[in-house]
Amino acid sequence: MNPNEQLQSLIENYLAQAEFPAEPELLYAPIAYSLAGGGKRLRPMLVLLSHAVFNDDVQQALPAAAAVEVFHNFTLLHDDIMDNAAIRRGKPSVFAKWGRNVAILSGDAMLIYAYRLLSGLPAERLPQVLATFNTMALEVCEGQQYDMDFEQKQKVSVVEYMHMIELKTSALLAGSVQIGALLAGASEEDCRKLRRFAVELGLAFQLQDDLLDSYGDERLGKAIGGDILEGKKTYLMVTAMSRADEPTREELRRLLGDTGMEPDRKIAAVKAIYDRLDVPHLTEQQIELRFERALAQLDTLSADAARCAPLREFAAGLMGRKK
Amino acid sequence: MNPNEQLQSLIENYLAQAEFPAEPELLYAPIAYSLAGGGKRLRPMLVLLSHAVFNDDVQQALPAAAAVEVFHNFTLLHDDIMDNAAIRRGKPSVFAKWGRNVAILSGDAMLIYAYRLLSGLPAERLPQVLATFNTMALEVCEGQQYDMDFEQKQKVSVVEYMHMIELKTSALLAGSVQIGALLAGASEEDCRKLRRFAVELGLAFQLQDDLLDSYGDERLGKAIGGDILEGKKTYLMVTAMSRADEPTREELRRLLGDTGMEPDRKIAAVKAIYDRLDVPHLTEQQIELRFERALAQLDTLSADAARCAPLREFAAGLMGRKK
Repeated sequence: MNPNEQLQSLIENYLAQAEFPAEPELLYAPIAYSLAGGGKRLRPMLVLLSHAVFNDDVQQALPAAAAVEVFHNFTLLHDDIMDNAAIRRGKPSVFAKWGRNVAILSGDAMLIYAYRLLSGLPAERLPQVLATFNTMALEVCEGQQYDMDFEQKQKVSVVEYMHMIELKTSALLAGSVQIGALLAGASEEDCRKLRRFAVELGLAFQLQDDLLDSYGDERLGKAIGGDILEGKKTYLMVTAMSRADEPTREELRRLLGDTGMEPDRKIAAVKAIYDRLDVPHLTEQQIELRFERALAQLDTLSADAARCAPLREFAAGLMGRKK
Repeated sequence: MNPNEQLQSLIENYLAQAEFPAEPELLYAPIAYSLAGGGKRLRPMLVLLSHAVFNDDVQQALPAAAAVEVFHNFTLLHDDIMDNAAIRRGKPSVFAKWGRNVAILSGDAMLIYAYRLLSGLPAERLPQVLATFNTMALEVCEGQQYDMDFEQKQKVSVVEYMHMIELKTSALLAGSVQIGALLAGASEEDCRKLRRFAVELGLAFQLQDDLLDSYGDERLGKAIGGDILEGKKTYLMVTAMSRADEPTREELRRLLGDTGMEPDRKIAAVKAIYDRLDVPHLTEQQIELRFERALAQLDTLSADAARCAPLREFAAGLMGRKK
């Protein structure tokens, strides 16, 4: 195992050793099911990696790392109700398996359980970590609400879209690195820089996710065009809308609203417009810009470059790059 | 204003001064709507009254008092989704007014907001208060799940029912007085006694609520028999079931399952069985017993009797008695 794999397995073990009461079963079984459901553990990794830049005692960061992972899984549990999503990580979602009421209530219990993990932190760090966690958690809710708002909205600007993903995706990464750094006793300035790193990394990650959904990735062999078929407002779509002339915008709207159209033809038609407007290339540029900005923050930390290397490597891995 | 009314108005003012962001509106407007929706503020009153037994600085207990009230309103918000309840305190529920997804997400934000109120507590008290709050919150979720389980269950014993309401109703009262006492710097023993007081008071209160739903209260003039028509497992019902012979149990089940029966006739028939089995009288005895036990705890606190008087008065008022 390389060092990052070792951290990953510390997280898995820590999460696996949590014991939930046997009763009421419909409250606790879904929590155990969610947490055992895999996932890349990106957010707890960010807690541990950020902590490790300043502090060698990884054990002290594990409860907080678990807390952000539990929080993340709580959001998925409730999001799946809101999105009517039957599948999560290749298995039935809690919502599909146990129904709406169980998913609401066990999700609530999961959020409380995240706070229970925090309550054992060293008392001198608790106020700051708790405040950071709360701000992060509210931002994630705001992002989810904006995302739902956008579904009903005719016109979403690129700025509005970036603001939404900064809340929905980046806030949790930024909170994670900040909590790791706080627990390690990092300076305020280092905390701020790490947050900036994570915000930019989150934006790069989300834009890449948007791009891959329409243009694919030979490494993943994933189905292409899901966002287009769902009519989702992605970075590609809002960029296309902002660059298109009125007839092209009209054409895009018509395509998205056409429920009778054969899926492959619809995807090809939308992508033809994206291509004509140079959207893929502009998105790639934006991804590069954000990723470079993220890495640049790491160069300015007060710690040695060697101590930042695992975090840098993790960021590169997240973006599918071999550093 | 008498002293308890003064505390009440401190709570109202504290809750009213909370400012929520204007955007996203569908996240924050339901929170403000919920908190402005009235309610008796019983739980924050218990925080303040318990605190006041040991400490005169009421201001320091206000954020925690607000936190338990916000938590309580969060549970109502999510319960209304689970119960499909359109009305809350005489107004449309958040669920009915804004829909299910908004109620889920703004409820989540409300729970997080409760923790935000806690995060500003004095650092030396925070770990204990946070741990108490978390335990309380999980117990309330457990109680709600048991309550939902009981709807599907053929047979619920009196012991199971008491366990459920101890979680669903008493836990929040017990957590409230404990948090008040912790913030006041009370001893562990006093905290334990106050918890016991609140657990018993909660049981007495819930049993009285069950009794009034079927036998009414001339002071309230409330519609009678709602629980019977809904087929709810109340203290009256589980007691009747435990005391009845098999033919009477069968008759009760038949009555509850009879959807064609005229409501007034159904209520009268079920109450005739209750009366025959001496259920109202037994319930009254149980209420008295629990209420006496609650008050007895107050006599053993290390504080002067005079300092406990407002709490005692509040408990009597809650039970509709003039001390």
